[in-house]
Amino acid sequence: MHDYSDDSPREECGVIGLSSTGTQVAQQTFFGLFALQHRGQEAAGIAVADGSTARIHKEVGLVGQIFTPERLAPLVGSHAIGHTRYSTTGSSGARNAQPFLVETMYGPLALAHNGNLVNAAYLRSELLTRGFGLTATSDTEVMTLMLAAAKGDTWEDRLATLMPSWIGAYSLVILVADTVLAARDPWGFRPLSVGRLPDGGHAVASETCALRTLGCTDIEEVRPGEIVVMNGTDIRRIQAVPAAATLSRCTFEFIYFSRPDSDWDSMNVHQVRQRLGEQLAIEHPAQADVVVPVPDSSIPAAIGYARVSGIPYNDGLIKNRYIGRTFIEPTQEMRTRRVAMKFNSLPENLAGQRVVLIDDSLVRGTTAGPLVTLLREAGAREVHLRITCPPIINACHFGVDMGHDNDLIAARMTVDELCRHVGADSIAFISIEAMMAALGKTNGYCNACFTGEYPVEITRRHTKSQFDHVLA
Amino acid sequence: MHDYSDDSPREECGVIGLSSTGTQVAQQTFFGLFALQHRGQEAAGIAVADGSTARIHKEVGLVGQIFTPERLAPLVGSHAIGHTRYSTTGSSGARNAQPFLVETMYGPLALAHNGNLVNAAYLRSELLTRGFGLTATSDTEVMTLMLAAAKGDTWEDRLATLMPSWIGAYSLVILVADTVLAARDPWGFRPLSVGRLPDGGHAVASETCALRTLGCTDIEEVRPGEIVVMNGTDIRRIQAVPAAATLSRCTFEFIYFSRPDSDWDSMNVHQVRQRLGEQLAIEHPAQADVVVPVPDSSIPAAIGYARVSGIPYNDGLIKNRYIGRTFIEPTQEMRTRRVAMKFNSLPENLAGQRVVLIDDSLVRGTTAGPLVTLLREAGAREVHLRITCPPIINACHFGVDMGHDNDLIAARMTVDELCRHVGADSIAFISIEAMMAALGKTNGYCNACFTGEYPVEITRRHTKSQFDHVLA
Amino acid sequence: MHDYSDDSPREECGVIGLSSTGTQVAQQTFFGLFALQHRGQEAAGIAVADGSTARIHKEVGLVGQIFTPERLAPLVGSHAIGHTRYSTTGSSGARNAQPFLVETMYGPLALAHNGNLVNAAYLRSELLTRGFGLTATSDTEVMTLMLAAAKGDTWEDRLATLMPSWIGAYSLVILVADTVLAARDPWGFRPLSVGRLPDGGHAVASETCALRTLGCTDIEEVRPGEIVVMNGTDIRRIQAVPAAATLSRCTFEFIYFSRPDSDWDSMNVHQVRQRLGEQLAIEHPAQADVVVPVPDSSIPAAIGYARVSGIPYNDGLIKNRYIGRTFIEPTQEMRTRRVAMKFNSLPENLAGQRVVLIDDSLVRGTTAGPLVTLLREAGAREVHLRITCPPIINACHFGVDMGHDNDLIAARMTVDELCRHVGADSIAFISIEAMMAALGKTNGYCNACFTGEYPVEITRRHTKSQFDHVLA
Amino acid sequence: MHDYSDDSPREECGVIGLSSTGTQVAQQTFFGLFALQHRGQEAAGIAVADGSTARIHKEVGLVGQIFTPERLAPLVGSHAIGHTRYSTTGSSGARNAQPFLVETMYGPLALAHNGNLVNAAYLRSELLTRGFGLTATSDTEVMTLMLAAAKGDTWEDRLATLMPSWIGAYSLVILVADTVLAARDPWGFRPLSVGRLPDGGHAVASETCALRTLGCTDIEEVRPGEIVVMNGTDIRRIQAVPAAATLSRCTFEFIYFSRPDSDWDSMNVHQVRQRLGEQLAIEHPAQADVVVPVPDSSIPAAIGYARVSGIPYNDGLIKNRYIGRTFIEPTQEMRTRRVAMKFNSLPENLAGQRVVLIDDSLVRGTTAGPLVTLLREAGAREVHLRITCPPIINACHFGVDMGHDNDLIAARMTVDELCRHVGADSIAFISIEAMMAALGKTNGYCNACFTGEYPVEITRRHTKSQFDHVLA
Repeated sequence: MHDYSDDSPREECGVIGLSSTGTQVAQQTFFGLFALQHRGQEAAGIAVADGSTARIHKEVGLVGQIFTPERLAPLVGSHAIGHTRYSTTGSSGARNAQPFLVETMYGPLALAHNGNLVNAAYLRSELLTRGFGLTATSDTEVMTLMLAAAKGDTWEDRLATLMPSWIGAYSLVILVADTVLAARDPWGFRPLSVGRLPDGGHAVASETCALRTLGCTDIEEVRPGEIVVMNGTDIRRIQAVPAAATLSRCTFEFIYFSRPDSDWDSMNVHQVRQRLGEQLAIEHPAQADVVVPVPDSSIPAAIGYARVSGIPYNDGLIKNRYIGRTFIEPTQEMRTRRVAMKFNSLPENLAGQRVVLIDDSLVRGTTAGPLVTLLREAGAREVHLRITCPPIINACHFGVDMGHDNDLIAARMTVDELCRHVGADSIAFISIEAMMAALGKTNGYCNACFTGEYPVEITRRHTKSQFDHVLA
Repeated sequence: MHDYSDDSPREECGVIGLSSTGTQVAQQTFFGLFALQHRGQEAAGIAVADGSTARIHKEVGLVGQIFTPERLAPLVGSHAIGHTRYSTTGSSGARNAQPFLVETMYGPLALAHNGNLVNAAYLRSELLTRGFGLTATSDTEVMTLMLAAAKGDTWEDRLATLMPSWIGAYSLVILVADTVLAARDPWGFRPLSVGRLPDGGHAVASETCALRTLGCTDIEEVRPGEIVVMNGTDIRRIQAVPAAATLSRCTFEFIYFSRPDSDWDSMNVHQVRQRLGEQLAIEHPAQADVVVPVPDSSIPAAIGYARVSGIPYNDGLIKNRYIGRTFIEPTQEMRTRRVAMKFNSLPENLAGQRVVLIDDSLVRGTTAGPLVTLLREAGAREVHLRITCPPIINACHFGVDMGHDNDLIAARMTVDELCRHVGADSIAFISIEAMMAALGKTNGYCNACFTGEYPVEITRRHTKSQFDHVLA
Repeated sequence: MHDYSDDSPREECGVIGLSSTGTQVAQQTFFGLFALQHRGQEAAGIAVADGSTARIHKEVGLVGQIFTPERLAPLVGSHAIGHTRYSTTGSSGARNAQPFLVETMYGPLALAHNGNLVNAAYLRSELLTRGFGLTATSDTEVMTLMLAAAKGDTWEDRLATLMPSWIGAYSLVILVADTVLAARDPWGFRPLSVGRLPDGGHAVASETCALRTLGCTDIEEVRPGEIVVMNGTDIRRIQAVPAAATLSRCTFEFIYFSRPDSDWDSMNVHQVRQRLGEQLAIEHPAQADVVVPVPDSSIPAAIGYARVSGIPYNDGLIKNRYIGRTFIEPTQEMRTRRVAMKFNSLPENLAGQRVVLIDDSLVRGTTAGPLVTLLREAGAREVHLRITCPPIINACHFGVDMGHDNDLIAARMTVDELCRHVGADSIAFISIEAMMAALGKTNGYCNACFTGEYPVEITRRHTKSQFDHVLA
Repeated sequence: MHDYSDDSPREECGVIGLSSTGTQVAQQTFFGLFALQHRGQEAAGIAVADGSTARIHKEVGLVGQIFTPERLAPLVGSHAIGHTRYSTTGSSGARNAQPFLVETMYGPLALAHNGNLVNAAYLRSELLTRGFGLTATSDTEVMTLMLAAAKGDTWEDRLATLMPSWIGAYSLVILVADTVLAARDPWGFRPLSVGRLPDGGHAVASETCALRTLGCTDIEEVRPGEIVVMNGTDIRRIQAVPAAATLSRCTFEFIYFSRPDSDWDSMNVHQVRQRLGEQLAIEHPAQADVVVPVPDSSIPAAIGYARVSGIPYNDGLIKNRYIGRTFIEPTQEMRTRRVAMKFNSLPENLAGQRVVLIDDSLVRGTTAGPLVTLLREAGAREVHLRITCPPIINACHFGVDMGHDNDLIAARMTVDELCRHVGADSIAFISIEAMMAALGKTNGYCNACFTGEYPVEITRRHTKSQFDHVLA
């Protein structure tokens, strides 16, 4: 379904990099990317280097559709990076697909990126002023061209030199002739982990689920501010810039983005989600007969809520798994029952029941109402909506598409108004304190979308570009 | 993943038919087919009639990929049928795609079919002997051409005349110039239901989940042996041939095929699966700490098993949702860890635990062993495999692809051997009696794949064709 | 250019059949079809048989685009037929693509056809009445299904039995399990020739240019009413029905359709076109300085006209060779100068000259006027249009699309009106007598489009179908 | 046919630029490109600007296939450039497709190029040393990025500043936000002309045939060293750098590349080719009965040879017009008769004749022999091969692909050896003097491929790049 029944934030990318000791690195990268598909479904790419030459294929589509044996065959070498992205539609999609590959005075250079630089417009105008011609509109090209032009004896020197000038979120993978590098911003906004491949080589990836799919061992997080340099069995890890005094990991990775089988900050995502449900049950109990998740992301939290509350867990909504793009708009009649294309209810599990409905977030507020209606039509006596994150009232500037500020329903309505708007008997959001308790932390996370307290200043000086939109 | 990590039987088709009062029947059919996508992911088609002329589009691919606005636009009319199928690859895929559309002396005729005629080869050779030229290798063409040549004043007369000669499983939808018909074999092998569209028209579909997606009300099962004739707001239901004395519904629809939000035989699939888990817990208890499903099909049974056993339910395996075809074979190294491409474990939920693993079936036995290994690697102390169906020891002749007889692992091994083969601490299959208890029935179901007792004779006389394989 | 600057009749098909002694028959068929591409540019197909099984690939597009190595590889065997067709656009294009392949009681049967049966509607309704279901709207399916149902011991017996019931034009190639057959209607409307392949096998094709491309020797015409049976080095030729007392070869094959390097009726096409130009020069001389052809079809006639008249031959118009389909409509401004997309003039060869412009035919009259204007704009002092066929005033019923009767400009205007309409200084058509003189014949040719004297009766009894247009 | 029967040099590109007063500039550019298709059949692109924003579409394929209405619709604006190119296959094809579009500090910039800079490797390494990252391997990107970084107040200033540093052949079209510019190297290697559009705007194109297709008037050549600045009805022409003392137009444009309906250097190509034939007849007469061209390029020269020699002109070879790419290799048997796929002979015009065969050039010498054989098999008594250019013995460095030096057959064989090699009775090449006489010139043309006297020095200093091939 093309977006109309989806009310979650959008992660923008997944990255992966491998420096292996064998010759099947393109296949391995493919399978790793396949495990990161949930981080971006609109375009994907793989670049491979063989010691001297780099080759690339990138295209709009799903990983499994793009990469046929014919597409992978020419991608020979032992070093590779891959990227999967969510992007806007249209030809710009193809132009901004990653990795971004160039020839430089130091040899081939490819870069793929998850995150967002808040000073990208500034950096971009600097490049333009220096006489560069830019083919894309992304901060990825900006970082790549800065790296191509940087001074220094080695790629890690040059990268380390540039990192202080990049303000915002970046988890990068970089391919050069015979090495794969990775780097993470000093705030640690987005995840990035490293591990050892079964063949003795090394890999980095946005999420550990991809490293585990590849059979990696010794999996660790890439530290904020760190550069990892991988060359087959050799690996060096350099603290290029000091980590920020207070880290700013994205809480939403735990709430929604990451796969439940990934670990981050030494915690398993599924476990954290369970604990979010447990905290929610303590903070916002409900008199009810059944705990029902909005599948699939809210299942662990519903398990946790059920465990603590003692209210039985059961399925109440079934989701159509074939959620690829469709091009067909629903008919007028169907549009009034929009979520029907994605969800059906299970009346036998709901009829006469007082239901606690667990959802991960409320962004534009377009699906909660129809889901409540669906439960009521299935006979639910009461519906108590419980959300595993606080109200989202500020846009994200660090790589997540939550829509514009005025799309955010919680910024426009009180909780009571929201409750009436969605038609629930009660509605409650977890508090920031309880959410952090589920994480077992008191700080180190970016909660700007809930609080408006951005860890780096978001000012006009970052966006002085007079050159916007000259490429369409 | 192309099959290598999937050890379930294959349903062969989903069908849908609509006779509406409006002009958006192609769009409605699309959304209904989209809800039946799980019944066949290799080809799909829609045929539409406008009172005099029929138009069709069918192609290899997923419903959401095939039907763009450009493809649907020419499909004008108020009457439609649709089909989604699992089929073998290659050009035969396209040739055998459904619906099958012909011009007849009575006007246009399109037919789509879920099931399998056991006497198809006989009927086929009869047609050939009468001088027909056949373009496909399916029983669908056979039924269509028999109908084109049948005597009788009306389509329902002709259809009723033919039904006694069709031995086996068929749930049919038929499109003619201004009417949609549906028919179901007298044994009732495969599901088929009918309901009223919001616009006053009527619809039939393999599963009620599709009718509910379309907003249908007054949903009832099409009775075994019944013909349904739909023309907008008019609907007639004719018991064309008597239902078999003992019905033969396919048990596997409840165990695996149907979507949990579908109803059949007045029972909800999700509820039946929960009860299968409950019966399994009673029949085959285990000393364990956690009940873990193989997602997604075994989730309801795991909920039921947990409820009765008192052992907590939790996720232990995470499945990659992007399960479209991929063309890339895993590397040798990855092949030894095959299920890794599809599943990762959740060690935090498994470490040190005694696990009850719930799976729906064991066919070729290719995934159970790797899944048990995955759990053990994640730290599970014991793994007790519980299967929600009895051992499958006979091939199906009624529309399900379980592989050849000698593919069936339970036909070759004792339960003890199976346990050693998959590396579990214990393994247990639900008994036929307990399975039927979960259904609340003592008969009326085909359990031939478990028992070898086929409800209709499977003999050579059905397969006297000397003409096999002249088209490749 | 999509038709707007083309004012020639459309040939509907080219056919080819090979029974070789080797294993590369699909490749050979491909190269033969490639030489017949001018007879149909909208769809093409190849069917191959290996002694027991037949395989096919057919698709919309040009021969060179459709048949990749991947498409040809599965087409294994020693016997093949191929077809290239002009057809109307839309989905019906794919459905009516040829060859038409069916399984019959006698084994596989594929048929491809060039021509048109005038009693197709009658035969079609006969088949429908006998209970057949028809998937296409072409007379090819009708002939194929009649053959599938025919009585007789051998394919040639059955074919011979049916030929008397087929009224009209047909040059057929037929593929069965281990043999290729060919047949030609008793009137001899459309060409068909046979030859020996370099490997000792045999081939038939619509035109000898395809046989020569394949290196054939002993090339002869398939006789009107004849069946040719080919099995590798064996060939039998059977006069199945007597040739018509007066043959009816299509004159237009010489005027326009056939490639100049083909022979027919023991004459070379290029030579006949030269003689048409010579006759035209005798019959309709002009006081002029240069003879200019409309490229490419009128070049040989212009050579002949120049030779007899003594007026020098030269190019005056250059044609864009990349005449595949384009989807882009010319702008309004360009539409007023329509032929500009296809032709440019050569002012240096035209300025101040009195020009004899040689064209092959005038059908709808849409291009002659703009071409005359183009010459005048290039400085031509006078333009004398000379046409190498008589005025076309009747539609063809034997496989040529000349448009409907009221599209034919010569049916609506006198020669004087035509001259004013196209803006020429003079216009002249070759007479039927002079045209026949160029052929060196007095009869044996169908000139119905010029005379209205159809060699077989065109009556309502041939078209009694009440079933038209039930498939769109 | 994929190259195996083609023995001509390859032109590398065609360019076009339009600054119109209307809104259909994308359509106009399409039709102009369509007229330049012969200059490159492997990729094409169009970029359009609307006063502030530039949009582009480029792809591998033929112009008529790439540009559908859906592709053209987003290309809104009044200013456009287009390009069609011959390129090597593989992914590099897509990456090097033109125009090349970037954002610069001055706004959008797109550039398309016909020619070749001999100092491209030097310029490229300069850019790399300055820190640029290059995405392609073409000199087009080099020129674009140099322009993006150039100093100066206006685009023409910046372009004029750079032109002296570009050594070699370039005919450029450049698109910026609201203007189209064109420039030509001071040697005038490749053609480029300018004209006024019917709507009052202006256009430039590689050949006048494209301008004439668009209805242009006041067509003139862009002068060597000149910049043309076009903005709707405004046009400025600036002699940016002085023309070379001795111009170096490519003679091969007249011999082979350009369409016969184009003019260059105030001469019509068809006329020059006629005169080449006339000169050849004077210089190398033959005792013969018929003059036969190798179609299509040698037709005008054959007309000229016939006129002067008094020997009648006639067709002797027919070429298959459907010369798009085919993917199918000829069978072994057919390979020995290679030219058969492209040419058939006309025995009736050849049998017993002494033939003068006119061909435009002999490069690798792969087709002349088979063509002579074809004529002899058709009965030609003698074959006298006459070539309208001198022997090619040196590679071109100015944008023409003649293959490597050791591919050139005339560099390895004497004329006598060549005659025996191709099996002709006699063979003769036009002399440089006679060729120049046909042009009516004594100098001003580059004949380096015949003489080895390159108009600019070809030295190692131009190719000091150590960075070759880091992108594959």
